[in-house]
Order: sequence, then structure tokens, then C-alpha cells
Amino acid sequence: MKKDKRPFEVTKNKGGCFMTKVRVGVAGYGTIGQRLADGVAMQEDMELVGVVDFAPTLAIRALYEKGMPYDLYMAEGAERSSFEEIGIPVKGTINDLIDKVDIMLDASPAGVGAKNKELYIKEGIKAIFQGGEKNEVADVFFHGYANYEKGIGKDYLKLTSCNTTGLIRAADCLDRAFGVDNIAITIIRRVADPGDYHRGLTDALRIDKAPSHQAVDLMTIMPHIRATGILVHTPVTYGHIITCVVHGKSKIEKKSALAEFEKHPRIRVVTTDEGFLGNASFFKYGRDLGHCRGDNYEIGLWADSIVEIGDDIMFAINIPQEAVTIPETIDGIRAAMNMQLNMEDATSLTNKYLGIGRFKGMFKKGKC
Amino acid sequence: MKKDKRPFEVTKNKGGCFMTKVRVGVAGYGTIGQRLADGVAMQEDMELVGVVDFAPTLAIRALYEKGMPYDLYMAEGAERSSFEEIGIPVKGTINDLIDKVDIMLDASPAGVGAKNKELYIKEGIKAIFQGGEKNEVADVFFHGYANYEKGIGKDYLKLTSCNTTGLIRAADCLDRAFGVDNIAITIIRRVADPGDYHRGLTDALRIDKAPSHQAVDLMTIMPHIRATGILVHTPVTYGHIITCVVHGKSKIEKKSALAEFEKHPRIRVVTTDEGFLGNASFFKYGRDLGHCRGDNYEIGLWADSIVEIGDDIMFAINIPQEAVTIPETIDGIRAAMNMQLNMEDATSLTNKYLGIGRFKGMFKKGKC
Amino acid sequence: MKKDKRPFEVTKNKGGCFMTKVRVGVAGYGTIGQRLADGVAMQEDMELVGVVDFAPTLAIRALYEKGMPYDLYMAEGAERSSFEEIGIPVKGTINDLIDKVDIMLDASPAGVGAKNKELYIKEGIKAIFQGGEKNEVADVFFHGYANYEKGIGKDYLKLTSCNTTGLIRAADCLDRAFGVDNIAITIIRRVADPGDYHRGLTDALRIDKAPSHQAVDLMTIMPHIRATGILVHTPVTYGHIITCVVHGKSKIEKKSALAEFEKHPRIRVVTTDEGFLGNASFFKYGRDLGHCRGDNYEIGLWADSIVEIGDDIMFAINIPQEAVTIPETIDGIRAAMNMQLNMEDATSLTNKYLGIGRFKGMFKKGKC
Amino acid sequence: MKKDKRPFEVTKNKGGCFMTKVRVGVAGYGTIGQRLADGVAMQEDMELVGVVDFAPTLAIRALYEKGMPYDLYMAEGAERSSFEEIGIPVKGTINDLIDKVDIMLDASPAGVGAKNKELYIKEGIKAIFQGGEKNEVADVFFHGYANYEKGIGKDYLKLTSCNTTGLIRAADCLDRAFGVDNIAITIIRRVADPGDYHRGLTDALRIDKAPSHQAVDLMTIMPHIRATGILVHTPVTYGHIITCVVHGKSKIEKKSALAEFEKHPRIRVVTTDEGFLGNASFFKYGRDLGHCRGDNYEIGLWADSIVEIGDDIMFAINIPQEAVTIPETIDGIRAAMNMQLNMEDATSLTNKYLGIGRFKGMFKKGKC
Repeated sequence: MKKDKRPFEVTKNKGGCFMTKVRVGVAGYGTIGQRLADGVAMQEDMELVGVVDFAPTLAIRALYEKGMPYDLYMAEGAERSSFEEIGIPVKGTINDLIDKVDIMLDASPAGVGAKNKELYIKEGIKAIFQGGEKNEVADVFFHGYANYEKGIGKDYLKLTSCNTTGLIRAADCLDRAFGVDNIAITIIRRVADPGDYHRGLTDALRIDKAPSHQAVDLMTIMPHIRATGILVHTPVTYGHIITCVVHGKSKIEKKSALAEFEKHPRIRVVTTDEGFLGNASFFKYGRDLGHCRGDNYEIGLWADSIVEIGDDIMFAINIPQEAVTIPETIDGIRAAMNMQLNMEDATSLTNKYLGIGRFKGMFKKGKC
Repeated sequence: MKKDKRPFEVTKNKGGCFMTKVRVGVAGYGTIGQRLADGVAMQEDMELVGVVDFAPTLAIRALYEKGMPYDLYMAEGAERSSFEEIGIPVKGTINDLIDKVDIMLDASPAGVGAKNKELYIKEGIKAIFQGGEKNEVADVFFHGYANYEKGIGKDYLKLTSCNTTGLIRAADCLDRAFGVDNIAITIIRRVADPGDYHRGLTDALRIDKAPSHQAVDLMTIMPHIRATGILVHTPVTYGHIITCVVHGKSKIEKKSALAEFEKHPRIRVVTTDEGFLGNASFFKYGRDLGHCRGDNYEIGLWADSIVEIGDDIMFAINIPQEAVTIPETIDGIRAAMNMQLNMEDATSLTNKYLGIGRFKGMFKKGKC
Repeated sequence: MKKDKRPFEVTKNKGGCFMTKVRVGVAGYGTIGQRLADGVAMQEDMELVGVVDFAPTLAIRALYEKGMPYDLYMAEGAERSSFEEIGIPVKGTINDLIDKVDIMLDASPAGVGAKNKELYIKEGIKAIFQGGEKNEVADVFFHGYANYEKGIGKDYLKLTSCNTTGLIRAADCLDRAFGVDNIAITIIRRVADPGDYHRGLTDALRIDKAPSHQAVDLMTIMPHIRATGILVHTPVTYGHIITCVVHGKSKIEKKSALAEFEKHPRIRVVTTDEGFLGNASFFKYGRDLGHCRGDNYEIGLWADSIVEIGDDIMFAINIPQEAVTIPETIDGIRAAMNMQLNMEDATSLTNKYLGIGRFKGMFKKGKC
Repeated sequence: MKKDKRPFEVTKNKGGCFMTKVRVGVAGYGTIGQRLADGVAMQEDMELVGVVDFAPTLAIRALYEKGMPYDLYMAEGAERSSFEEIGIPVKGTINDLIDKVDIMLDASPAGVGAKNKELYIKEGIKAIFQGGEKNEVADVFFHGYANYEKGIGKDYLKLTSCNTTGLIRAADCLDRAFGVDNIAITIIRRVADPGDYHRGLTDALRIDKAPSHQAVDLMTIMPHIRATGILVHTPVTYGHIITCVVHGKSKIEKKSALAEFEKHPRIRVVTTDEGFLGNASFFKYGRDLGHCRGDNYEIGLWADSIVEIGDDIMFAINIPQEAVTIPETIDGIRAAMNMQLNMEDATSLTNKYLGIGRFKGMFKKGKC
């Protein structure tokens, strides 16, 4: 079905061979799409060919003001004049971009990805969709750590949502070390991203019907675990916090759990005594670190939130909603394109190029 | 030690006897104090003699504008002129009030209650303190349902805080019906009351070190249960939400838990389909009901938040922080003053006079 | 065109005559509709016949829980079973209600009022629409103080919006005393009402294109004044604040402006020293006063915000968005139904029945 | 009084001469101090020698995690061990830093700067204080555009606060072009910075007594203008918005005002149609531009907010509170150190090194 655009498998990752970079396009240059583009551009074995959008949004204007580091292609139905009359150069249409890439990362608004998929199929390229699309859009519902192997060589992956991606990191970390039976989560969700004007909540907590979709999604990715949860929306923009009550195959003690979390490259263990007082501290810290857009790829985990209760262990994690799915999506490229054949190699390479985990265990002292 | 100001025990609650109302004073006419005064004034077997405050706050100005339904007494160190120069009549000092009452409800700022206690001891009257005081201030750390008997005849009680009061209602409800071993809670806490300008949080979640004091307090009141929890502050004013993961002595099923919750007079079972979308819905509903100050005495419990996980049951409750401790405090008067000798009688009478539970089970249809 | 349902004009307000109360219906039992119903029910010369709504909202459920103080009629397209299956009695349809009333207050969602108007025309009754409808729906765009005379005897009035209603009170107050040429306003707007879940804003100020519609509306009501303004939405629920820079026909001094504001029954002059620190203080104060739903009908005006600049005077007012239009709407009934023939008599009677202005000038001392 | 640490005047800025960079230290590595350090480090004619702080805050931890691009010196009273036990190298004390620099930028907590000044006097170095200190701390209350000449060669400058700095940019811009007599401002103030946990406001607007200090400060800097204003705090973190009603010496028309604003390098003229919907849009845009910490140095000015009223002109500006004072502070270094002798040269050089104004006038089309 899929036309072979170039013999990618032959040349990849072989020492001494001519190395071809995987060519990647990004559809939808919004909050996630911008960060996918930046993340791919940092991968030495990938090439960001271009990005697609529909209108000269602030993100596109910023791209232009930066001097067009990425070529811009128009989404279907976009008006070329809307860009050109303010001087923004358009390289072509989404079809032109598809023609030049091996894989598309689709971060279009929910539902558009499913429509774009028809174009991808037609041109025989692979694609990775974000959490807003329905599961049916993809062959595999994917997470870089928890089910990397299932994504290898597949044509269409769908990433878990931001909360689910971060949650699974922590769950998978414990599951590999101790075995996990059940998880009960409480998601304290941010309702909007910084700069969002199309959604919001003012002085109100909003509860969804239980169980939350994140718990259900976790079970889809990790079918040997039972999970449930309650989600409460809160009027903040700087990140989600999730509390987890985990029932292990045997009792998981705080000390050994903490040791596992600290080893995980995409989990940053912190304490309130260090100054990480909540979600906004992580946001501030990412900016102070000089990260691009002030982003954090790691989830946070408060060492001083870990408590034992009965046979269970409870703890809280912080989810930086804007950037958390970027590493796992790039893992997905490695899987779908057969670039690495196991999780350890794939995630290590992603981490290396994104600069994740360089600083593990630096602020040990003073931790509980 | 305690001087017998009048032979209260002889006259109380005896049919055919001359009935003397218990005389009650309230120290601290803030958010809680105002509501305690209103609540006592609704009890037919109690008399609100007066309230104490330090300065002409908005609450005191409103009292005046309403025509002084309650007499005002000055706290220690207050300046009479600060009231009188704007026309607000002062009946006397806190000592004058103490002289006229059988029991004081102390809702002064944290720490002031402990100082006031010296006055209460000196005059030989009883007192009930609010959650802001340290446990040592009281003989018994009290909850109207969970340990009513411990408060009977005692001189000094301390009420559980708002979150703990509401949480224990739900925990005690399940514990009586099924037996409870462990509880793991996540408190999604409002940081300020409506109209608060002395505290606040803007676009930030703040996490406290675990375990939260509410879990610890629950174990003090209900020592046969193990509890832990994580507390996250959120920038809202309309009420707390708590999620609970409860491990019963045997498996507690959703259906039977729901049945117990629905029988409890101080728990209002609702659904999101009815329109109770979050904490702000309860606040709005209390206003629409025409309640005084728009208050709710009941905690809310979302029927559609109840889920089972492994051997545990999980659900979410809503805590109306301004008024939730009022019924249990009034229960405390009944206990301390020997007005009723068991929980059922005491709480029933409090509920009756406060108008709690009149409407149980009205919106059954459409519930999950 | 209009069928004469009863000879109302003959019997109104005549001493010695048999007095017929004006019969009023309310369409739309939301935030405004509930308060219109409550306000009309307080008028001794009016009778609230019933209210109309479409579905068993929280407001309707609260009406039921209160024992149906007002009869409920169904809006067009509503399903009777949605009410009856939870026990809420339905008296009839909107047409049944129209048949029984002299005038409808239409607080339906924006656009529905215009459709309802066809029913009103058909049955020959009058109506007053709220600010959400387009101006064309009405014969007169109405404000109780600023253009009462224009509403007398008219069939269809439209009230100014909440911000405009409050703004015009202050503008009209100065205009009558001193003459006003220009007004430049900055509206610091609340984005949602307490309990709103269908709109909101999180950690963001949002600016609208200038001039704001409120300034334009002011010029429609008071065509001899030039007005402009900028509106900024803020993530709060407890009320709007508007700053006004007013250029009078001659220089308006702070002292004389203050004296006029203090005389106005629907303006409450306060200071920050008294404890009115912002919009939330007014909200709290209304609750502490024991007002129904905690509402305030008066706008607030900070005496310590008044400053002079060049030939202009500047000051800030507080707009309680939920209830501020109620008095002027009831004035509108008096105008449309020919109940009073001048502004002073009409507003005085409305104020009397609503309990407005009883406390004017009480906290004089300490004001700047 | 001041010891001549090196003959700076001889060597500065002379073509062909040996060029000595001005050596700068920063005291207080908080929100402002971090940005001052970054800003100075970008100036090719300055050298950032080091920064001072008291404790291993998140900002200091981030500095460490970045590899100590700036040397760290300890504030008076700091404990060396608190840094060293977590591995953060300390270069010396504040006295050691003072010994190495020509000028200190003091962004310490309010009041600490005045104490530090004694050290600066003792060592004979110059200093620039931020808005939190009292005016008496400095010889000149300084703004880079409005009174640059007054700062030349002075020892101690104090910068205007963030709101005042931005406001004066706009006021000075109009004043130079048209002459300004009066300004009436409404400040819609953000209450906390992103990541702040020590202050906040929840669902409340708070009003200060008028006139606001910003209006008073403007008159100190620009004594030929009369200014007043009202300040309202709002629960947001992403920036202030100020509306200005300006009375010029002659009528200022929208078109000509806009032309002046567009020429100003530190004012970015935008429209809501472009997507700049409020303060949060600017914050997002700075991040999307890839600016360090996502900061903006420019104030925003909405072209579609400009309206004329009577003889006045009204408009709204956006103030990025974290970074707005950086350029004017760096201008202050140029003035105090005699590096440039007029405003145009000084501000141009600052702008050049900070990358300000490169993109002026890019999105002209579609503007109102």
C-alpha cells in the first residue's frame, strides 16, 4: 500500500554507511506543533523539512520575525494572500511538504489530523498523531517507554495526551522495578495554556465524570494494570499536578520508589524545600534555565509528597503540558521509522539530543 | 475549678420542666464567627447572647446596618471609640459577655483563642475552639458524628477544620456501614474565601509536604483508621474538593456506598448531569436557594465520581469551607453542655433547627 | 395593534380607587431572570405571575427545593417530561403565562427575546428586554434615571447592560448637578458570574477594540454627552470596576461631586479605609447584610478614588453585575405601564420596595 | 569622596584607543536581577563581573545547572555552606564583587539596596537602584528616554518602576512630538510574576487610593506634565495594561499619535486582529520568538485601542513587568559612567545590543 519513497531502512544507523537523516514535517504549528518542530530540529539524525499552518497566527508571525528558520507550508483551504500580504513567505502546500518527508507529526486541531491522514496514505508516508485525535486514527496508541516495541515499523502512531504521557512515565518506572497492579489517580488539571484566549475557567473547580480518560488510556497502553481516576479542572496555566495511589504486586516502599524515580531521565525529583512549591515553580525554572520557550521536557516528582498507606504508595507529579509529549513523539519517529529497535536505545538518543537528564541527581542534599 | 454559674444540668431538655436555653457567646465575628452566631440563633434551645470583635470590620458594619440583631462586645485591646465614632453601639467587653453565657464559641484569629481561654477558665465557662487553634487548647478534638460521646460534659472542645470536618462526615458514613481500614485523600483546596484580600494565589497550584494535616487529624478523631494524603492549593474561593480512595474492611461497592451517602443528612448527593459541575455550582445553588449568606451546611458528593478500583472505592466530595463546621460546632454545644447524651439525638436536633436534610433524595431520577 | 387585555390605565395608582396590581411574567430564569422575579415580587403594586424556562437548570431545581414560590411555565420547545420526571410541577407554556400578564420581563438568552417578542405582539402585551438583545427589539433603549420619560407608555423597552446601567447612574448624577460634556471610561470587566462554567478566562487580561459598546450606549441614552472607552476583561467573578474621566461643562470639584454621589440612592459611597478594598468586598458585604442571594442593587463609588486632573474629574465605581439592572428594569415597568409619570416618583417607589438607600450616609466618619 | 578606581573616562568609546569595558555587578538575583545580568552580558561595551544573592533560590540553582555563566558572590549574612553543600561554587562576598566593578545594579529586596549603598559609598563605586527603593537612595530618579541627561556622571540613580517605565516611554513619545499637558491613567496591574508564591490575589480586583504612585512618579520625572491615576490590581501574572487619557498642548490625532508610536524602538504597535488579544498574547509571543526567558523589552501598544474624545486622546499599553526596566537601567549605566552624552546615542546602543526594534513596522498591513 505504501509507496517506498526511498530505501530508508538500508542506510540508517549503520557505522561506516552513508547516513540519511529522516525527513520530518509538522502539521499544525500551535502549542504542540511548534515544540515538535523545535525538538525534531535538535535531533542530529532527523531533518525538519517544514511546518504547516492555516493562518498567520502569532506563532507563525514569530516564526517570520525569527527569520523563517523553518519553511512554511499552507494547510488545505488556507489563503496564500493572508500570509503574503504581511510579507510571510509560503513555500508550498501541505501536499508539497508531504512529498518531501518520510513522516509527518500531526498536531493539527482535533479532527483535522484524521482528515490529513488521507493525504498521508495517498502519498505513502507515515505519521504520528497527537492526543486530540481519536485512537482509531492510528495503528498503535504509543508511549516511548511503556510500549515502544509496538510502534516499531508501524505506519500510524497516536501519542498519549500530555497528562497520560507523564503519568505513564511514572507508572512504567514503578512497574518495571516492582510490578504494579492498580493505580488510582487524581488529576488536578490546568485548563488553558499561557496565552490561551479560546478557553478558560474563572474561580471554579470543574469535575468530570469518573473514570477520567487518562486512567482508561493508561490501561490501553499498559493492559496488565487496572487504573481509575477523577479529574478536576483548575484555573491555572502552568502545568497539571497528578496524585497517584499505587498498589504494587508487593508493597512498594518510599525509599526504593524514590531511588527508581531518581534514575529515570525524564523524571525530575525535587522537594518543596528546594523551592519547587508547585506547578508554577517548574515553569519559572524552565525559563530561568534558558530553555527554548522556557520549556521542560521532564515531569516533576516531589520527593516530599511520597507517603505510604496500607500496602499502597502515594505521590504527586507535575506535568508540563506544553512540552511533555515532545520526547515520546520523537521516540515514536524512531520506532515508526525503524531507527532503533529497542526502547533503551531510542529513548537514550532522544534524551541526548534534547538535553534531557544531563543534570540528574544534582540537588540530592536536603532531599527527604 | 469551674464555678457553677447556674445549675444547667437540672433544667435541660426535660419535658414538663422549666426549660432554660443554653446561653452562647461568639468570639471573633469573621467568616466563621458570623455563621456560628447565625447558626446558634436558629437553635430553639439556645440563646445567642452576643458577639465579640476587635474593630469595625465590614462584618461588623453589616451587623450594624442590619440593626444590631446581635449585641456587640469588644475584644481585649479594642478601642471603643473606633466603633462609636461611626455610631455602632458597644454593649461591653468580652468579660461582660463571658459573665452572661454558659459557653463561648471561639472563632478568633489563630492563637487568640488560646489567650481567651484564660478568661474562660477564670470565669468558669466552657468553650469550643475552631480548627485554627492548636489541639492542646482543648480537652477533646471533636467531630459531631465521629466522636460525639467524647465531647459530652467536657469543658473545652476543638472542632476539626473545614476540610477535616467534611472529610470525616464521609469517612464516618462509610465506616459505620462497612468498616474502613485506610483512606488516601487528595485535597484540592481553595486558598481564600470570597472577599479575602489578605491571602491569595494567582495562576499557581501549590503543594504541601505530605501527609496533609487533615489526614493526620482524621486519625486523631478516628484512631482505628489509617489515613494519608496530599494537599494542593488552587486559586479559587468557592469551596474545596477532596478525592478519597477508601479501603474498607471488606470491598465496598459503589451501589451500597451511594445508598449510605444518600441517607446521610449532611451529605448532598448530586451529579454533573443535574448541573453540579464543580465547587462553584454548589456556591451558586446555596445563593439560589435563598440561604442566609448563600451558605451550604452539607458537603456535596458526586454520585458520578464514584468508581471502584481493585478492593478500593474512590469518590469526590465538595466542602463549603465557610459554613461546613457550623453544624458540628453546634453539636459540640449539645455535647459539652450535656444537652443530648448521644450522637443521633444531638445531630438530629442541630439538623432540624438548621434546616438540614429536609430535601434528601429529591432529585433521584437521572442519577447514575 | 395591541389588544387591550384589561383597562389597566383606569385603575392604577388612584387613591380611593380599586387598585389593580400590574401582572408581570419573567422569561428566562437565569442569573438576571431570577433576580427580576425576586425584585418584582417585592413590589407591592406588582404581581409576579410566573417564570419561564427551558430546562431543569440549577436555578429551577432551587426554585423547586424552595417550594415553588413562583409558578413555572415552559419555554417554546421545552420538554415537559424533563421537569416532571424529577417532580417539578409545570403550570403551562409561555403562551399560557403571556395570557395572564400585562408585561413580560424577557431575560432569555441573547436572541431568544427577539423571537419571544412575536408572541408578545400577538397577545398584545408589553415587554422589557435585557442588554443581550439588539437595540432594534425595542421602541426605547431605556435607563430608569437618564431617560425615564422616553419609556412612558411604550410597548417595548430594552434595558442597558449591567456596566452601562451602573455607569449611567454615575454619569447622570453628575450631569444633572453640573452638566457633563465628555466621558472617557476604562472598564475592568469581570468575565463570568459566580458559578459560571460556560465562559471564563484564566490568568489573562483581554482587551476589546475601542470604543467599548458601553460608551457608545451611553451616548445613545444621553445624546448630549460624548463618550469613549476601553474595555479590558479580567479573570474575576465578583463585579466590574469602571474608572471614569469626566469633563464637565465647568470644572467639577471633588468635594461637590462627592456630595452629589452621596445623595444618590443607588450609589453607595465607600472608602478603602472602611474595608471596601475592591469588587469582592462589595460581594462579601451583600452576603453579610443577609440580602437575598447576597445581592447588591447599588453601585459602589470609592470616595478615595476621586481625583482632579486639569479640568477633569476622575473616579472609580463598582458594578455588581448580577443585580444592578434590576431596579432600572422595574422602573421600566412603571414607565411602560404608565404607573408613574416622572422619574422621581418611579425610582423612589422602586427603591422603597427594594430597600435601596435606607442606609445612605451612615458611615460618613473617616471618609476622605 | 569616591575613590577613583580606574581612569574610566580616558579610555571609553574612543576609536583607536584601548577600549576598557565597564565592569558591572548585580546585587539580588531575583526576577529583575537575573534579567539585568543577562542584559548587561549582551552589551559589548560592558562586562558582567558577577551576581550577588543570599540563598540557593531556584534562580541560583538554575544558574548552577547552566554551568555558572556568571560568578556568584554572597550577600551579607548569607551562609556559604547553604550553597556549597549542594555543590554551588561561591566566588566571594558582595565586598569582593564591589572591589572588582565600576558600578552595581542593585535589585535586592526593597530596603536592602539602601543598606548596600553604604558598601558602595565606602568602596567608591556607583550604583543604580530599582523602583522598590525609596527615592532618597539616589541622586536622580531616572528614565532612559525622559531625563537621560540628568543621569550623566551621577553616582546613584534610581530607576522608575516597571509600570512607570513603560508609561513614561509612551508619554515621552507623545510629549516630544506634540507636547503633553495632562495624563489620566488607569493601571490594570498584574499582582504576581509567573512562579510567585509569596503574593497573590484570587478572584478579586483590588483598588488603591488615588492618585497612584505611578502618576506621581511620572510628574517627578516629567515635571512639566500633570498626571493622576487609579490603580486596580487584578489576579494575573502576564503583564500590566494601562489606559491613558492624554491632553496635549494641542489636539493629538489618532493617526499622528500612531505614527509616533510606530517610530519608537521600545514600543511595539500591534492590533487585536493580528492576535494580540491581551497581556498573555505578548507573553506567549516572547516565548515563541525564542527570547531568553521568553522576555519582551518593548511595551505593547494596541493601535485599535486609540480613540479620540473631546480634545483628548486615549489608548492602552501593555507592560511586560519582568523585563521592561532592563533597557532603561542599562541606559542608566551609560549615563552614570559617562559612556554616552546624550539620550539618542545611549538608547540606540542599548537597543542594538539587546536586539530591540529590529523588527519595527513589519506587520503594518491590516492595522487599523
